[in-house]
Amino acid sequence: MSLNVAQKLIHSHLISGTPEPGHEIGLSIDQTLTQDATGTMVMLELESLGLGRIKTELSVQYVDHNLLQTDEKNTEDHLFLQSAAERYGLWFSKAGNGVSHPVHQAHFGRPGATMIGSDSHTCAAGALGMLAIGAGGLEIAMAMAGDPLYVEMPQIWGVELTGELPDWVSAKDVILELLRRHDVKGGVGKIIEYHGEGLAHLTAMDRHVIANMGAELGATTTVFPADDAAHDYLKAVGREDDFTELLADEGATYDVEERIDMSSLEPLIAKPSSPGNVVTVREVADEEVHQVVVGSSANPGLRDFAVVAEIMRGSQTASGVSLDINPTSREILQDLTRGGWILELIRSGARIHQSGCLGCIGMGQAPAVGRNSLRTMPRNFPGRSGTDEDSVWLCSPETAAAAALTGRITDPRDLDMSYPSPELPEKYSINTEMLSPPVEESKAREVELVKGTNIKSLPTFDPLPEDIELPVLLSVGDNVSTDEIMPAGSRVLPYRSNIPKIAEFVYIQIDDTYPTRAAKNDGGHAIVGGDNYGQGSSREHAVIAPRHLGLRVVVAKSFARIHWQNLANFGVLPLEFADPADAEQISQGDVLSFSGLHQALRSGNSVTVRVGDEPIELRHRLSQRQMEMVLAGGRIPYRAAQSEEADNAGTQDSDVPPEKVKPTQPEG
Amino acid sequence: MSLNVAQKLIHSHLISGTPEPGHEIGLSIDQTLTQDATGTMVMLELESLGLGRIKTELSVQYVDHNLLQTDEKNTEDHLFLQSAAERYGLWFSKAGNGVSHPVHQAHFGRPGATMIGSDSHTCAAGALGMLAIGAGGLEIAMAMAGDPLYVEMPQIWGVELTGELPDWVSAKDVILELLRRHDVKGGVGKIIEYHGEGLAHLTAMDRHVIANMGAELGATTTVFPADDAAHDYLKAVGREDDFTELLADEGATYDVEERIDMSSLEPLIAKPSSPGNVVTVREVADEEVHQVVVGSSANPGLRDFAVVAEIMRGSQTASGVSLDINPTSREILQDLTRGGWILELIRSGARIHQSGCLGCIGMGQAPAVGRNSLRTMPRNFPGRSGTDEDSVWLCSPETAAAAALTGRITDPRDLDMSYPSPELPEKYSINTEMLSPPVEESKAREVELVKGTNIKSLPTFDPLPEDIELPVLLSVGDNVSTDEIMPAGSRVLPYRSNIPKIAEFVYIQIDDTYPTRAAKNDGGHAIVGGDNYGQGSSREHAVIAPRHLGLRVVVAKSFARIHWQNLANFGVLPLEFADPADAEQISQGDVLSFSGLHQALRSGNSVTVRVGDEPIELRHRLSQRQMEMVLAGGRIPYRAAQSEEADNAGTQDSDVPPEKVKPTQPEG
Repeated sequence: MSLNVAQKLIHSHLISGTPEPGHEIGLSIDQTLTQDATGTMVMLELESLGLGRIKTELSVQYVDHNLLQTDEKNTEDHLFLQSAAERYGLWFSKAGNGVSHPVHQAHFGRPGATMIGSDSHTCAAGALGMLAIGAGGLEIAMAMAGDPLYVEMPQIWGVELTGELPDWVSAKDVILELLRRHDVKGGVGKIIEYHGEGLAHLTAMDRHVIANMGAELGATTTVFPADDAAHDYLKAVGREDDFTELLADEGATYDVEERIDMSSLEPLIAKPSSPGNVVTVREVADEEVHQVVVGSSANPGLRDFAVVAEIMRGSQTASGVSLDINPTSREILQDLTRGGWILELIRSGARIHQSGCLGCIGMGQAPAVGRNSLRTMPRNFPGRSGTDEDSVWLCSPETAAAAALTGRITDPRDLDMSYPSPELPEKYSINTEMLSPPVEESKAREVELVKGTNIKSLPTFDPLPEDIELPVLLSVGDNVSTDEIMPAGSRVLPYRSNIPKIAEFVYIQIDDTYPTRAAKNDGGHAIVGGDNYGQGSSREHAVIAPRHLGLRVVVAKSFARIHWQNLANFGVLPLEFADPADAEQISQGDVLSFSGLHQALRSGNSVTVRVGDEPIELRHRLSQRQMEMVLAGGRIPYRAAQSEEADNAGTQDSDVPPEKVKPTQPEG
Repeated sequence: MSLNVAQKLIHSHLISGTPEPGHEIGLSIDQTLTQDATGTMVMLELESLGLGRIKTELSVQYVDHNLLQTDEKNTEDHLFLQSAAERYGLWFSKAGNGVSHPVHQAHFGRPGATMIGSDSHTCAAGALGMLAIGAGGLEIAMAMAGDPLYVEMPQIWGVELTGELPDWVSAKDVILELLRRHDVKGGVGKIIEYHGEGLAHLTAMDRHVIANMGAELGATTTVFPADDAAHDYLKAVGREDDFTELLADEGATYDVEERIDMSSLEPLIAKPSSPGNVVTVREVADEEVHQVVVGSSANPGLRDFAVVAEIMRGSQTASGVSLDINPTSREILQDLTRGGWILELIRSGARIHQSGCLGCIGMGQAPAVGRNSLRTMPRNFPGRSGTDEDSVWLCSPETAAAAALTGRITDPRDLDMSYPSPELPEKYSINTEMLSPPVEESKAREVELVKGTNIKSLPTFDPLPEDIELPVLLSVGDNVSTDEIMPAGSRVLPYRSNIPKIAEFVYIQIDDTYPTRAAKNDGGHAIVGGDNYGQGSSREHAVIAPRHLGLRVVVAKSFARIHWQNLANFGVLPLEFADPADAEQISQGDVLSFSGLHQALRSGNSVTVRVGDEPIELRHRLSQRQMEMVLAGGRIPYRAAQSEEADNAGTQDSDVPPEKVKPTQPEG
């Protein structure tokens, strides 16, 4: 049987289930990635699981999100994470070392490996032929404890690339084209696999751009083959030995097929306030621009900055524009400096910021209300920039630089210059001094967790009752993102390790009375949503915090994958309308009556809820395992109950979670 | 008569009064400097004065304080300031161009000129032989409107420098030595003038370090002669034509005399939490350090960063330390990059931040509670870093670098290396592209002010009543700083253009019930203070905001100069105890009864207040002009009343304030 790359990766890590679309499968996980905004919660979960030492091949804790340090909370999170990394045996990447995804690719990317990360852009690692999936923090904690990752087997969506990108068009335009065609939920339930002769013209960092923003399509992940481009990249970062070729078999097929002729693409841009609002740059040319931000995991490569520097060379930013440069990592900043590009950027009027996510996650760089900000970043959900009524556009580095020069949205092909192609070094700078290796085990076990006053243990949650009446405290529309459910930004992110406090910010952009109403309402409540509920970032705070406020059930037309998993992980029941039209039947203030809920869940995928006298048919997509987890109040109490049973049977070493099953061998 | 440099500067700009210590004099002002944290208020004051165009030789609006942009407010302040600079005819220095003081010195510093600035470190310009004084925003607004600056003629404090600094000891240690000897109020009522053969060994940027931190001694300002060092500097920045020699006459004398033998100095450090807590580095060596921050107006020169880079060359920051580099300006960053020093700093593990004040004013870089942060900055008042219980130390770049290397407070002489002396370029990079010149007048008058939703016009204040009963809502100790009265930091600074909102933060570090109690208490209130009340930053918000909450009178043992002026400017009566021991007689909750207040103020400098039946004798130091101003409710209503009188007499062009009097000629 001919296998494609995604299938090979799945088959080589399959622990349970049948790898056919729609079935839950268990995958063994080689690596994990956590960042600071979600990682503090993961480390608190490891603590509450009582883990001794991680069981993965390697796990890395990055500090890249909360770097502003407007008060002591950021810094104390960093100290906590460093101590937790030492305690549990993780690598630790210090504040200032850079954004997790490109740093991970440079130091740990390995064709053929699996990874999960508590960041929705973890999928970027697919650029090197990894199967890398963003997931809620608890999934990552369980993987570190040695558990498999359980996911519904996605469809494999083959995107054939042909031709070569014209001048002034780059990798970002490829993924924007896919978003233009399929919008933000076009990839739900799918792994995107790129193939075709066009791949020969895309470097590993180009592929990183494309793989990263697969998250914006709602895809489970993106994979590229590990071919010459991966090989060249690993040579350039001094890890040629980590290269293994991983190609689709001759005759491999895909569940869904698509083709992009790269030679036909032109510069594209996503309008405010969704990555799916894509139009050609020409269609919106001449709009006034007040800010241009270059950086983030979506355009992280040396080239992405160097090309901006070359376009700016000898010129100045327009007087009304702030040009903000966020170098992705200290190593890339080092190479940008070595290559003279930083000097060009400084000369041209750029503000050079520290290495990290910064404005991409709303940590600074907030634009003025209604003023256009062009960014090379992956997302422009409303308010994500830190400004409630923002106007953020997403584009390539070329289009960003053109706007910085002219002060208006400008098709870079209309600049009066020839397309620069900066000459990159054969070897990238390697600098691991801010990347601390795991502490040796005997010493690690003596490390004490350093908990600042803002770091609070995880609340405990009770099982789901058999019969329950839940008022609908909020009813929302389609495509609600986790940025709207649990805002990020500098006012909120510092409370990521403090659930009672961060819960005060849940849904405040949509209805700022929700947290107070929910806190006052004893006995739990429900939320009703539209299509693609919970899209965007993987943050599990978007579940834990409303759960802390009493959320027990979300009824929606459909769910985004990671958020749906997070709901189940923390004991919130995610239900879908059997008939989406029924969504009209429920309004805010209605009371949902469930009776015989356990019985109903266990005996099928159908649940009936009564609103007044009206019965409405709902569905769940939970596996047996997930259902029991939800009934128990979430994965942590479920796991605790399992451990207790095992203890009673005398079979369990409390420090060692259930053993990892030997992966099945690849079939092809 | 032989004159010293300070006297020459004063005599050449004298408009009114006798230049003898203690007398109020009026000085014509050539230049003004405003930054964004105080400048928005100054621009609102220009608006309420109805100014047409500034009357100074030049005025510059800098954006250097609020650069984090955690929401739209920072950015909207920047847009407002840019529009106001265009409207009124100022130069405008964009966000990212750098810290006002060194940028001003490079582009506008001119021996023999006077300047006032709404930043307490304006005095740094004394390095080039200017008379540069920090003052409240309203003083700056009035100077732009053509009014003289009124100050009490200070004593001139001659500090003779002899010898040459040993290796590993630099300019910062000279000013720390003066702080060690005289503490934070040792310079009150004085201009510090440096002279002596030791000057030959100090460059203009060394002098900038020393002049800048004269503010920490409470001095009115600091002056250096304009000699070869100033000449060399102006050559290096391409403005040799702006050089004029300005030296003390042979036989010039000083009101107070002091000598520092520079060859006897050793590395010094100010312990938490006052710049006056100075000890030798050796005395506190080996304390663990968690953060090192290099930057700010106190050590702004290329050398100050280059020497750190040279010390770090080939080494790494200690693993527990975050080394944060805040380049002072884009031009200095450009030269640091050209010289290869930025590359060294990146290699060694430094976090390179954008150009600006940043952590110095509590905009980011907040340390963890109780963890030692070593900074090359000018101030370490409690909480200024953004962390309430911070532990911030002030030191030279050499001492900072030593701690970054070892992770502990370390005398840099104990490093096993020879003292690096980085070779600086003969010509500094000049890059004025982010410094916009004034808009031509006819166009300027058509510019509309761009006011975001957070920018509120100045509240109006009523006259001081003849008889008034004021409860004492707060009683505080000695050396209360304006950082404690009106905190800065990322939570508060964004409200600098919104008095009703920022008033909610007044005194919250000392008593967070004060704003609410004051707002509830109709009819006004009083505050009782100790010695040196209102030291530190020049921010007039520390008066306007409590005045908005009803503050009418402050009774203290003594006042810091700028704050005292600000109180009078906004109609708050500053009174001193005739007998400081009487301070014990008044407690929080007491009611102060004043009767016949206008009469008492006008007939002498003595005022009697009754506390219960107890009379207490108080003094005021207001000039006739200031007294009338306070009685009218502050300088703006006073000025408005004057304009009205003039209008009634038919003599006033409402757009043109009273004419500037021709300066008297220098005598020597």
